[in-house]
Amino acid sequence: MEEEFQSALLNSAVNELSRLPGVGRKTALRLALHLLRQDAGVSDSLAKAITELRHGVCYCSICHNISETDICPVCASPRRDATTICVVENVRDVMLLENTGLYNGRYHVLGGVISPVDGIGPDKLEIDSLVERVRAGGVQEVILALGATMEGETTNFYIYRRLADTPVKVTQLARGVAVGNDIEYTDEITLGRSLRDRTPFNGQ
Amino acid sequence: MEEEFQSALLNSAVNELSRLPGVGRKTALRLALHLLRQDAGVSDSLAKAITELRHGVCYCSICHNISETDICPVCASPRRDATTICVVENVRDVMLLENTGLYNGRYHVLGGVISPVDGIGPDKLEIDSLVERVRAGGVQEVILALGATMEGETTNFYIYRRLADTPVKVTQLARGVAVGNDIEYTDEITLGRSLRDRTPFNGQ
Repeated sequence: MEEEFQSALLNSAVNELSRLPGVGRKTALRLALHLLRQDAGVSDSLAKAITELRHGVCYCSICHNISETDICPVCASPRRDATTICVVENVRDVMLLENTGLYNGRYHVLGGVISPVDGIGPDKLEIDSLVERVRAGGVQEVILALGATMEGETTNFYIYRRLADTPVKVTQLARGVAVGNDIEYTDEITLGRSLRDRTPFNGQ
Repeated sequence: MEEEFQSALLNSAVNELSRLPGVGRKTALRLALHLLRQDAGVSDSLAKAITELRHGVCYCSICHNISETDICPVCASPRRDATTICVVENVRDVMLLENTGLYNGRYHVLGGVISPVDGIGPDKLEIDSLVERVRAGGVQEVILALGATMEGETTNFYIYRRLADTPVKVTQLARGVAVGNDIEYTDEITLGRSLRDRTPFNGQ
């Protein structure tokens, strides 16, 4: 396995590339041979971007989103509503929510959800730091924006309990029929929730 | 597009990663976030392997296979039969043939096949250098190991014509029923070729 190809440099590149998620040895070889066919500048830019990414990006000390500064632009911006914190599982969720263009509050990235099966307890997540942020005052609403999965719901409930003795309002993302979906393709639990949580129809 | 994410370093890494074949922006983001979660050593090793690959690997000046030296180990080895040259499309084909463990001759990597549709004429391939190698003497057989495609056959025929005035024997890989395949799943042309080129059955 280690000396599969004639060239040690090719072996080494294939080994490193195949450590990436979803990249097997065949794909890694294809990528390596592709890089060999390109100008050296392509490999150099890629290597530089990878190195600078890992060494230049850190995590915001307030919300734990990725950042290039100790405090991320969202937490640092006076234009973002500091009274609302949206709790998400990971940094990709922040990007998704930012892309909706409908949220103007701040975030709190947990770094996962509670999952006893995977050995992830509350202590491995940024839950204590969330509670501290709320206790520090100024926060009026915590929006739980975790997945509608067993683990997400468990984490929602845990956070809700931890915040029970604070005056903060805890909300969660609405569950319901996905926009564009037929009722037919909506599962019964979701349909039940969408019926219970029905909203006033105002012609929009 | 250029400033899709909050971090310029993340943008840059996603841009570079998505230049790899088969890697879209979503996959590139997944890879970048994966690298951010790993130790810095993982990114550093990957970046180093990519840089060293592109700068350390060159092409053999005789057979044009990838090599870390001017002449590749196959061409340099006195144990490899110098009287036989196997002509292949690309460096991956060399690996495939080496993996069979059944070939002890040398190679000649064309760098492609003749394909007028893609603007690839014989002048863009290492065909002149193949003819030169044969004319230099000492070669008794040229094995054409190109794909059994229209382009492969065209290239086979072109090389055959170019070598017509040399005493070298030109052969090609056998066409026939793939090992493990039923007759039922073999196309008519292949079946016809396998019938015409039938081989003595000796109980093996």
